[in-house]
Amino acid sequence: MKSLTEYLTFEVHARMAFQNITREVEAAVKKSGVREGLVLVNAMHITASVFINDDEPGLHQDYAAWLEELAPFDASPQRYRHNRTGEDNADAHLKRQVMGREVVVAITDGKLDFGPWEQIFYGEFDGRRPKRVLIKVIGE
Amino acid sequence: MKSLTEYLTFEVHARMAFQNITREVEAAVKKSGVREGLVLVNAMHITASVFINDDEPGLHQDYAAWLEELAPFDASPQRYRHNRTGEDNADAHLKRQVMGREVVVAITDGKLDFGPWEQIFYGEFDGRRPKRVLIKVIGE
Amino acid sequence: MKSLTEYLTFEVHARMAFQNITREVEAAVKKSGVREGLVLVNAMHITASVFINDDEPGLHQDYAAWLEELAPFDASPQRYRHNRTGEDNADAHLKRQVMGREVVVAITDGKLDFGPWEQIFYGEFDGRRPKRVLIKVIGE
Repeated sequence: MKSLTEYLTFEVHARMAFQNITREVEAAVKKSGVREGLVLVNAMHITASVFINDDEPGLHQDYAAWLEELAPFDASPQRYRHNRTGEDNADAHLKRQVMGREVVVAITDGKLDFGPWEQIFYGEFDGRRPKRVLIKVIGE
Repeated sequence: MKSLTEYLTFEVHARMAFQNITREVEAAVKKSGVREGLVLVNAMHITASVFINDDEPGLHQDYAAWLEELAPFDASPQRYRHNRTGEDNADAHLKRQVMGREVVVAITDGKLDFGPWEQIFYGEFDGRRPKRVLIKVIGE
Repeated sequence: MKSLTEYLTFEVHARMAFQNITREVEAAVKKSGVREGLVLVNAMHITASVFINDDEPGLHQDYAAWLEELAPFDASPQRYRHNRTGEDNADAHLKRQVMGREVVVAITDGKLDFGPWEQIFYGEFDGRRPKRVLIKVIGE
């Protein structure tokens, strides 16, 4: 069994943003030499997501507006108990659960085995600090 | 390490529907000869899901009604920016994030290692066109 | 390829609760002898979740209140069709979809390859009965 581990670092200047990381994952798969296997890609921080969807800016604005509706930002200690600890990012912990922590993608014949529109995104919900994404490739 | 890759194709006639694909996944695991490992099952399209839950028609109606409440269908360009591109399926991209893209299931002693009620479903949120699901088995 | 399968059993006395199971997963990884690989941790019941987030009690209360807002408990047969079958836990099936069924975690150098705050939780949404979690380790 072959394996490869890579870490990506992001520092997003907005509170919420989505960044396409498909190329970085493709590069890690190529570097691993794995022809048949799996690649795990996950946020290493708990106010961020890795997810697969469409690379369409309008859709990303829809995600942002919808997540804000489902779990509004509110730094006050009234709405969220987590924000009584001195934090202001309880909403980001909630948003991340909707979008997910990780994706697992099949590697077939040395490539990400993707449908026509699948792209991998890093989703940031509490930006303005450095955060990491892990890429783990296993297979043969 | 053994591996096996299979693709299922669906053309669902409703906009939203849930289809039990447990048998197809079991067949792929059997065909692979893997006794201990993992199977990844994922939607290859970004307005569909693969998820695990109960095969109970009332619950599926509950899912449909609840998802419609969380992310209502609205083809107009007003509500969703994605629908300004000529698409009408922004809601389907949102619904899919709630239900998830993929499941990873343990294979133990040659079988899906499931609890008593676990069944695998394909969830369609923008039907009436052919779409694919990927099954990737790895292990020994 | 090495593999190891373990089952944890929980009987939570509240309807909804979150329990840190990171130590149990670490112990299984250690026992497996896997240095590079993946560990899958999943709920084996369809009204429960396994997810990764912060071990902060205020946040857990936020999750509980937020999930209750998104998918309120209602045992009556009016709101949820699933509850016309004699069940009262339709809400738990919905809550579990928001929080997810499973996590897949990278094993690097014999350890869970985690960011600074990542902890693994069992999320119960219909407690007061025994339920199981599966841990599957694969790698080398």
